Amino acid sequence: MEADAVVLLEKGDNKVPPTWIRPGAAVIRKLLKYQFQILTFLTFYLQNVVCSSSRLLQEQQYRPWRLRSLKLNPLTPVPSDIEISRAQTPKAVTQLAEEIGLLPEELEAYGRSKAKVRLSLLDRLQSQPDGNYVLVAGITPTPLGEGKSTVTIGLVQALSAHLKLNSFACLRQPSQGPTFGVKGGAAGGGYAQVIPMEEFNLHLTGDIHAITAANNLVAAAIDARMLHEATQTDKALYKRLVPSINGVRKFSPIQISRLQRLGIEKTNPESLSPQEVSSFVRLDLDPNKITWQRVVDTNDRFLRKITTGQASTEKGQMRETGFDIAVDMRNRLARMVVGTSRSGRPVTAEDLGVSGALAVLMKDAIKPTLMQTLEGTPVFVHAGPFANIAHGNSSVLADKLALKLVGQDGFVVTEAGFGADIGMEKFFNIKCRASGLQPNVVVLVATVRALKMHGGGPSVSAGAPLPKEYIEENLDLVAGGCHSNLRKQIQIAQLTDTEAEVALVCQIARECGAADAVPCYHWAEGGLGSVELAKAVKEAASKPSHFNFLYDVEIPIVEKIRTIAQKVYGAHDIELSAEAEAKIDYYNQQGFGSLPICMAKTHLSLSHMPEKKGAPTGFVLPIRDVRASIGAGFIYPLVGTMSTMPGLPTRPCFYDIDLDPITEEITGLF
Amino acid sequence: MEADAVVLLEKGDNKVPPTWIRPGAAVIRKLLKYQFQILTFLTFYLQNVVCSSSRLLQEQQYRPWRLRSLKLNPLTPVPSDIEISRAQTPKAVTQLAEEIGLLPEELEAYGRSKAKVRLSLLDRLQSQPDGNYVLVAGITPTPLGEGKSTVTIGLVQALSAHLKLNSFACLRQPSQGPTFGVKGGAAGGGYAQVIPMEEFNLHLTGDIHAITAANNLVAAAIDARMLHEATQTDKALYKRLVPSINGVRKFSPIQISRLQRLGIEKTNPESLSPQEVSSFVRLDLDPNKITWQRVVDTNDRFLRKITTGQASTEKGQMRETGFDIAVDMRNRLARMVVGTSRSGRPVTAEDLGVSGALAVLMKDAIKPTLMQTLEGTPVFVHAGPFANIAHGNSSVLADKLALKLVGQDGFVVTEAGFGADIGMEKFFNIKCRASGLQPNVVVLVATVRALKMHGGGPSVSAGAPLPKEYIEENLDLVAGGCHSNLRKQIQIAQLTDTEAEVALVCQIARECGAADAVPCYHWAEGGLGSVELAKAVKEAASKPSHFNFLYDVEIPIVEKIRTIAQKVYGAHDIELSAEAEAKIDYYNQQGFGSLPICMAKTHLSLSHMPEKKGAPTGFVLPIRDVRASIGAGFIYPLVGTMSTMPGLPTRPCFYDIDLDPITEEITGLF
Repeated sequence: MEADAVVLLEKGDNKVPPTWIRPGAAVIRKLLKYQFQILTFLTFYLQNVVCSSSRLLQEQQYRPWRLRSLKLNPLTPVPSDIEISRAQTPKAVTQLAEEIGLLPEELEAYGRSKAKVRLSLLDRLQSQPDGNYVLVAGITPTPLGEGKSTVTIGLVQALSAHLKLNSFACLRQPSQGPTFGVKGGAAGGGYAQVIPMEEFNLHLTGDIHAITAANNLVAAAIDARMLHEATQTDKALYKRLVPSINGVRKFSPIQISRLQRLGIEKTNPESLSPQEVSSFVRLDLDPNKITWQRVVDTNDRFLRKITTGQASTEKGQMRETGFDIAVDMRNRLARMVVGTSRSGRPVTAEDLGVSGALAVLMKDAIKPTLMQTLEGTPVFVHAGPFANIAHGNSSVLADKLALKLVGQDGFVVTEAGFGADIGMEKFFNIKCRASGLQPNVVVLVATVRALKMHGGGPSVSAGAPLPKEYIEENLDLVAGGCHSNLRKQIQIAQLTDTEAEVALVCQIARECGAADAVPCYHWAEGGLGSVELAKAVKEAASKPSHFNFLYDVEIPIVEKIRTIAQKVYGAHDIELSAEAEAKIDYYNQQGFGSLPICMAKTHLSLSHMPEKKGAPTGFVLPIRDVRASIGAGFIYPLVGTMSTMPGLPTRPCFYDIDLDPITEEITGLF
Repeated sequence: MEADAVVLLEKGDNKVPPTWIRPGAAVIRKLLKYQFQILTFLTFYLQNVVCSSSRLLQEQQYRPWRLRSLKLNPLTPVPSDIEISRAQTPKAVTQLAEEIGLLPEELEAYGRSKAKVRLSLLDRLQSQPDGNYVLVAGITPTPLGEGKSTVTIGLVQALSAHLKLNSFACLRQPSQGPTFGVKGGAAGGGYAQVIPMEEFNLHLTGDIHAITAANNLVAAAIDARMLHEATQTDKALYKRLVPSINGVRKFSPIQISRLQRLGIEKTNPESLSPQEVSSFVRLDLDPNKITWQRVVDTNDRFLRKITTGQASTEKGQMRETGFDIAVDMRNRLARMVVGTSRSGRPVTAEDLGVSGALAVLMKDAIKPTLMQTLEGTPVFVHAGPFANIAHGNSSVLADKLALKLVGQDGFVVTEAGFGADIGMEKFFNIKCRASGLQPNVVVLVATVRALKMHGGGPSVSAGAPLPKEYIEENLDLVAGGCHSNLRKQIQIAQLTDTEAEVALVCQIARECGAADAVPCYHWAEGGLGSVELAKAVKEAASKPSHFNFLYDVEIPIVEKIRTIAQKVYGAHDIELSAEAEAKIDYYNQQGFGSLPICMAKTHLSLSHMPEKKGAPTGFVLPIRDVRASIGAGFIYPLVGTMSTMPGLPTRPCFYDIDLDPITEEITGLF
């Protein structure tokens, strides 16, 4: 398939700052002329024949929702995102829940327009066949973002409110780092938004806060434990860890788990030998091999590398460490590895005695949050920003719940962060591998702004004015971008061992080629403006598809990294630092060799060099370090200078954000 | 008044670990014999005659609630706190809200048993007279806590459910630091609890998370701004801070505020002179004079002192700083001072451009959370743990809302953290000064365990078994504690320039002296066990009272600190470090001299030395440093080695906490 087999053009770029729109009708017409998006569909054969036939048997279970959609009255020029969001009154979330078939006892309201959905729903709908699973991905974006969320929401508005097909958007909760830093929120934009957008973009229902609290409890436990071990004898440690209460000493269940891992099959604290006591009380963490960092949901670059423990109360136990931005639920809490003992054993959260407390901190965060689009159609928000440094996909649980709720002929549209090389590759090889789910359709979003950048346009940076090449028409730059980055990203979607049905793609390409594109107007018109896209997605989903993984998890870690680097990024080869090599050896020894790979790479280039646009080739991808998220279940190579803590620009967007003291309305939030 | 004029004895100590209770009836009887609490009432003359007479006019507005109280069936032995909490089914919070006169539109539910209450309520009930205002304080506690929250909740259960008087408890949201560290939660205990206690003790409605996010956004903004100023010219900074968008440059409102503070009355960005541009773009923060620390709601002692900015991306801008535990809403966001410029000017959150974003982050946290007791009576939870390092009182807004809701003859019972020297002194001199409210009754809680400690008993430490002196009867130690710490704490309550009505206190003392005490059983029986206490509080509240502040805010900072040290703590004098003196001089220069004082002192002694029990005298109180919380509106001296970041013990309570994977019930949370 060729790169110019792209199929849909969309007028209106949701990420154009509103100030450009306001000047007048002439500017708007000009913008509408070239600020469009190109969407590519790729379909996959469905491998699982059993699944297909069992679907047919249960087809009659499909029940169209009686959804009361909210009417839109789009204005021209399009107002700011927050003005649009505020002008629409959301339905009570309890009403939305009833319309889509949730029982009252499956809902926990958080205010009027958000609710947690209980996981017991999965049991109730166990025999319900899944709906169609649609992934929205993109080409390598500019730092301003290219509107995948807007496409996702426009598409479900079109499917639900206009084609009357049950459909759900599954989105990630945005991080407050970018919300107050550069990029703006992730609720969509224009007339394709999740509302109320300020609730979506701020604390939501507290999931990221819960993750932060759980993560930092582990970090505090690590350092405190090292201090206590450094300053107490085996006997004193044992007396405190297993105290005598009213003359009785007892192990807690979490301590019995640790004894079992140590091969000590005793349950009476008095019966341990001094050697066993010593093994039990000493995690003996090697300060240079702590892999657990603290997190904060703020773009706080000065926490990238810090020295802790400098107060005199910490008795000289200083240690160099850092903070990451709070991301990604590590959902297999007990087995999370936090570091290595001096004798080389992995030390887990359960060894620290903290895994139960983590589960308790996370008990509500594990439930997806139900919200709605501007047209009153359902949205799940759950987990996962930062496809560059984490896997950056929304949760498997939300997708599974939504697939059951929409039923056989319904649609679940989810989004993979950043370019297809980043979020989509991880969606396929990590998320789908873990969930067992397979996508039926992929929508690939490419804005003209990003295509121009890949075609050789000047650099785009957040906070700085956009160069004139991006404001005025320039067909050469667009063509350049199509033939480099877009072509490559399409190949990536095919490369994950997918045998795309070329005939179908070509047919859509002929129908919808750039010269004869079907225009989409969801940013300016809401779902009505994406009806043609929705029909194309429905058509693509009705065809059989085929899906395979890019790599077998059983090949060596280095080979898995190399496969991604070469086949996805276009690298000539990879180069491992000594540290990365040593870590890989260690992970192999410890039996972590069969985990999938979650690359931490810049999202601003297919390569590790953010300034290299288009589709670079021939480069050697440097692997600086390799981390392991054993709880989450992946190996986590750090590519080049990639940082796990973003920074704030000179003029962060918080300058414009305020609360009106009289009306209590938020101003300036995009 | 003498220290032995104490009035009530209460059987049952809510803080006895449940494992001591379980062994059998003999142990329980023994415990009930001496694990009691002594409560002292002090009343104050009401100064404001106008207020009193206006109350009479509006008396008829009082409307008793039609509250459906929840029945208790107390078990013996008393089960663990979480078992008791789980055995009771709370009313829907919407029902509770209706019963106490809230309108549906004033409520924002968070799940089934918590709701935020909108502040518009204050306007609606503007003309409603306030109810009675009761403060629960205590003597110097052991590290295990002495049950003030339990008394508070037992008292409102008795007042509401048994005496049928409208009453509200106003409590602080507990920090997750102690919840997973040492002390346990703050929901009360036994049959006097807020339910569901696990929701109370964990994330609640996310207020502390919001505070943490807002605080850390300021911290990130400070360091990022210093980096950008260090690496850019005036012109480059100006170009980024006031970018040209579509050819137009415009100041944001927050930037215009800064220009006004600089005395630059211009609104056109093109019109500033180079000197004015330089003043505008350069906060020129002195890295050694940053007063803003990061916060985390975890007992993470290794963050007490750290060095940040060590990654190469931060270009050598390293800085020694630290984290505090997340506390206390700083509610006057714009004027918060974050540090000092090299030329000696205070730099505020508004100078950083971040104050509007903070208001947005805090917009829901400003609303109190409604919950209920085990007997279905209302509770507000809002703000404020850590009376030792912050002011440690629940919010003024919650108290004001509750005083309106209970109405003229109702009762609002709130709690001041730790001993009367700490929380109550701050309640009087900071909180009441800010709110204009005055307490009608003070309940002073003293456990025998703490009295014994002050009477010369061995040290009590969390995580270690309790010495036998505390488990066996020892009248000498109790008497010693009464004549030292309790006597002194009673004097403190009188000392805040209050003319207690001695005749009344003596009358209550005669009625309820230790030899002839009225027993209370709220821990074992719920509100029914505190009915005598409730009657005594009602009687005390019906007498006129008188209230004055300990010091005039206009006297010099040093004199205010000395007054607290001498009159409250019993110190001979204070001793200021050179740093403390320099800071005080600076605060005086900057016009912060008239703020009240919020001492950061250990809660484990009346002095600065945690091991000095009883009522130490003759000591010199060392003032190590003095900070200023200009937003909150107080000066904040650090006494001795007091740390603003607690630590974790060798065996934190998280060892016992877990989530049952089948029932999803929490186990081991106290």
